[in-house]
Amino acid sequence: MPLKNAISGRLLARLESSYWTSCVQHTRNSCRLPRPMNLGGTRRYSHHVGNNPKPSRSWASLASRSAIVVGIAAGSLQLLSEDSNDKPYSKVKKAKVKTFRLAEVKQHNGSSKNPWVIRGTSVYDITDWVRAHPGGEVILTAAGGSLEPYWDIFTIHKRADVYEILEQYKIGEIDDVDLKDGRVPQDAIVDPFKYDPERDERLVTLTPCPRNAETPEVGLREFITPNELFYVRNHFWVPTVDGPEHKIIVELPDGSERTYNVKELKERFQRHKVTTTLQCAGNRRKSMTDGAGPTNGLQWKAGAISTAEWEGVKLVDVLADAGLDIENLPADAQHVHFSAMEAYGASIPIRKAIDPWGDVLLAFDMNGAELPRDHGYPVRVIVPGTVAARSVKWLSQITISEDESPTQWQQRDYKSFCPSDVKNPDWQKARSIQEMPVTSAFTRVEPIRDSKGEVESICAEGYAYSGGGREIIRVDVSVDEGRTWHEAELLDDEAQVSGSKAWCWKRWRYKGQVADDGKTVARAVLVVKATDEAYNTQPHTYDSIFNARGNLATAWDHAKVSLGR
Amino acid sequence: MPLKNAISGRLLARLESSYWTSCVQHTRNSCRLPRPMNLGGTRRYSHHVGNNPKPSRSWASLASRSAIVVGIAAGSLQLLSEDSNDKPYSKVKKAKVKTFRLAEVKQHNGSSKNPWVIRGTSVYDITDWVRAHPGGEVILTAAGGSLEPYWDIFTIHKRADVYEILEQYKIGEIDDVDLKDGRVPQDAIVDPFKYDPERDERLVTLTPCPRNAETPEVGLREFITPNELFYVRNHFWVPTVDGPEHKIIVELPDGSERTYNVKELKERFQRHKVTTTLQCAGNRRKSMTDGAGPTNGLQWKAGAISTAEWEGVKLVDVLADAGLDIENLPADAQHVHFSAMEAYGASIPIRKAIDPWGDVLLAFDMNGAELPRDHGYPVRVIVPGTVAARSVKWLSQITISEDESPTQWQQRDYKSFCPSDVKNPDWQKARSIQEMPVTSAFTRVEPIRDSKGEVESICAEGYAYSGGGREIIRVDVSVDEGRTWHEAELLDDEAQVSGSKAWCWKRWRYKGQVADDGKTVARAVLVVKATDEAYNTQPHTYDSIFNARGNLATAWDHAKVSLGR
Repeated sequence: MPLKNAISGRLLARLESSYWTSCVQHTRNSCRLPRPMNLGGTRRYSHHVGNNPKPSRSWASLASRSAIVVGIAAGSLQLLSEDSNDKPYSKVKKAKVKTFRLAEVKQHNGSSKNPWVIRGTSVYDITDWVRAHPGGEVILTAAGGSLEPYWDIFTIHKRADVYEILEQYKIGEIDDVDLKDGRVPQDAIVDPFKYDPERDERLVTLTPCPRNAETPEVGLREFITPNELFYVRNHFWVPTVDGPEHKIIVELPDGSERTYNVKELKERFQRHKVTTTLQCAGNRRKSMTDGAGPTNGLQWKAGAISTAEWEGVKLVDVLADAGLDIENLPADAQHVHFSAMEAYGASIPIRKAIDPWGDVLLAFDMNGAELPRDHGYPVRVIVPGTVAARSVKWLSQITISEDESPTQWQQRDYKSFCPSDVKNPDWQKARSIQEMPVTSAFTRVEPIRDSKGEVESICAEGYAYSGGGREIIRVDVSVDEGRTWHEAELLDDEAQVSGSKAWCWKRWRYKGQVADDGKTVARAVLVVKATDEAYNTQPHTYDSIFNARGNLATAWDHAKVSLGR
Repeated sequence: MPLKNAISGRLLARLESSYWTSCVQHTRNSCRLPRPMNLGGTRRYSHHVGNNPKPSRSWASLASRSAIVVGIAAGSLQLLSEDSNDKPYSKVKKAKVKTFRLAEVKQHNGSSKNPWVIRGTSVYDITDWVRAHPGGEVILTAAGGSLEPYWDIFTIHKRADVYEILEQYKIGEIDDVDLKDGRVPQDAIVDPFKYDPERDERLVTLTPCPRNAETPEVGLREFITPNELFYVRNHFWVPTVDGPEHKIIVELPDGSERTYNVKELKERFQRHKVTTTLQCAGNRRKSMTDGAGPTNGLQWKAGAISTAEWEGVKLVDVLADAGLDIENLPADAQHVHFSAMEAYGASIPIRKAIDPWGDVLLAFDMNGAELPRDHGYPVRVIVPGTVAARSVKWLSQITISEDESPTQWQQRDYKSFCPSDVKNPDWQKARSIQEMPVTSAFTRVEPIRDSKGEVESICAEGYAYSGGGREIIRVDVSVDEGRTWHEAELLDDEAQVSGSKAWCWKRWRYKGQVADDGKTVARAVLVVKATDEAYNTQPHTYDSIFNARGNLATAWDHAKVSLGR
């Protein structure tokens, strides 16, 4: 009989017009935590704990309560700490230094209305910090005890600015009687990244835990990216799971549920193939940083983009089977939330899900092979034309809702702003990134030399991509900083791949003179820009699209090439 | 019994992979000319002439054979004359000056394999020029006689460069015996613009015949543009027609036809309302000319855009009724051609036509009133999110085809190119403009003065729009040439108007300091740019999107304001 520990509506109320849907189903330990419940129209959330509950501070429960720790790794901390709307520096008066017993702190665990944590021998009441925490409620996992074991894994916290924030919430010290050798005794916790898969060494690693790695140049040269070179963007660890038995819950707005296991999904629904490019919202972030100033987040170069043929079943078919009336959608069916096994979650508009040409899949296979663990085994969502952050991996729950997903990744991380809103962006007002804008990049530039070793001409290659299924119709290259342009050759034909729209990048090649006047130069700066079928094109520089999150770094790409012998 | 004058496949063959579908149904004189025919799989075109055929040089027959005269007015002449692929300067050897009798010239009329024209007393064999003629086959109307009566109406021809082109084709002179007072006697022709409607004087007229006029500032301030201030873009004259009895022919790929009159369309199909902005591909062309060099075409400022609520029936409902299998489209159902009564024609991809959220209408009403004659009475197409050139007015025929419309307006006028392709654009390779890119413009800038008359702040207003139903999510204004940006207030809410997607512009307002440092300046230059829901934004300057046609002038808009007392 499940133990239901209702959590107060306090945090929930702060997530205006949305509700918590993140769900983790951890088949290894049979615990499912927490899922949204509709109780007489009042939304609240509960912890469903199975017959074999893990200790409350396990990674399963961490995931269950999560939003992101790695949100910090992705760099939103600075933004948040400067966001006056969020009042991270709350007006909690520092109490006169008091002492607390460990037993008392333990009562202020993740289920408490007033969660406390310990760092060193100090005690902090983080009640007012939880919402502003870039990692969201995952911080509650540490509540009732010491932060250090978690920070030893998510080492991004070991920074002066984080310590400083925490100090705002200090309420006292642990009583000396509970210390051993002057320290608070700590429970050992398991490294959740221990079971992450082996990776191809050619991937360009940005962070090992969680794994974030770019496709190397050799992978970007191919139209279809080999699975082992497909870029990896993990927000947490890679879940371990019994594939065929892994369950996916589909919850409709009326609260009704239908559960499928992967085997059943594969057998019962028609299979479809879709070839699509996936691109991280932060692709080319480094070029925005270089061009317009510091941005928070993984400093991707041009390799956070790859293309594969995915095979699976159509999301709309599963939703219809689960009882959603596709022809006459209920008014509160506006968004489809996807919750992952580890903790991640995001949503897409319902219209994308039911669009007959939307091609949204629950995918099992990637380029003819079973999904690699890094890419969502046993089942992930594929949302063509949309920022890859919505193509949720390790899918565990689908929820139809009136509102967008309340997760960090929907409400905060993947948005962009007016360039002036660096210090105080209005997260609620900004639109979640869904369809991607047009972009292009260089992947290789080679001088071509004559028999004397003089540079005769130049060969440049790259890719261009636009979201929403808008085909790339032209790529222009400049060798004079954008004063004149030359049309590049497009190498790929959308008509030759699976899918209802132009979901894929196009590779391009330019061969020509380095300087239009034919003069010999020691160094050339090439520029590229693309145009899609709606004749949208890229902004010139980063100044006009700068945002402190470094999202959608789509300004003209530049390639510098040395032409000396 | 209709007289069928089959025209040779000569011109047809030049229009690779497409065929002629322009049809005119002129109820006044009961002649219908010409429509596409499928004869045993061989495409050719014929003239259907009714019981009361007009003389071959009437406007009805002009329209019937047309493409554009006004294409020249729209300025593609220069491009074409320099297009080596088209070989307008064909290798016709200038024959020794010969003389011809008028009777012989008359035999070389529009139905001849070798059409000739007269200018002054000179005779020209225009066989090789017809295809390169910016106005297309309308030139054939003049074949067999003098050009002058036509050029007196389409006065754009009276230019040195036009005379020069014509001289390439001279083959001789009219025999003196046919001259009267040294001149070729000329038939009078009727001015086709004689029956054009009266217009509101506030419209900003660019050309009176055909009528092209911008919405004035007062009209751009409203979300819904009053009918009398809606911008007018006519390629020819305004047809006169008996509204309820006016017929629309629907032709399917198998050659089958279904004819509806307007009364029947109104009665038999469900009515729908859609509010949408329509924008000319040339809107703001003047700013491209000013910013990057000469462009061919009407030099529109920011007023070739307006918004209305349209009411009519869904195109897809009519197509289904006419027998098109929407669920299982035939492979050769790729494009929907729309032919107008006067001569104009264009096409859209079939997917836009059948998209359940595409909202393509055959509209009868505009803002609650019957369509004004200038806007397509009695029935026009409305293609939301798409360049207005596809929202064909005075609709007479719908043809489902494997290929795009072969008209000038589909194959040539409404395209854009790599900025370097000024002299020799590859028209066939370039993509027809359908969905529009994101844009924005100023419509009003007013300094706000304090009691002493000093400028205290500034109020700027304008609109922003994006194609494809992509909502405008942000408008940024700069008062320092784009170094820093301020978010403007968006005044309109898409949710409050009819339509499946965000088809409408949004008006915006910015109030703030003229200079960020608060200093008093005598003159300010404001800049505006918009972002749509796919986070596409506008290019900085015109250099990178320049095209000699001046289409899609979407660079940041600038407004200069004098701040002196």
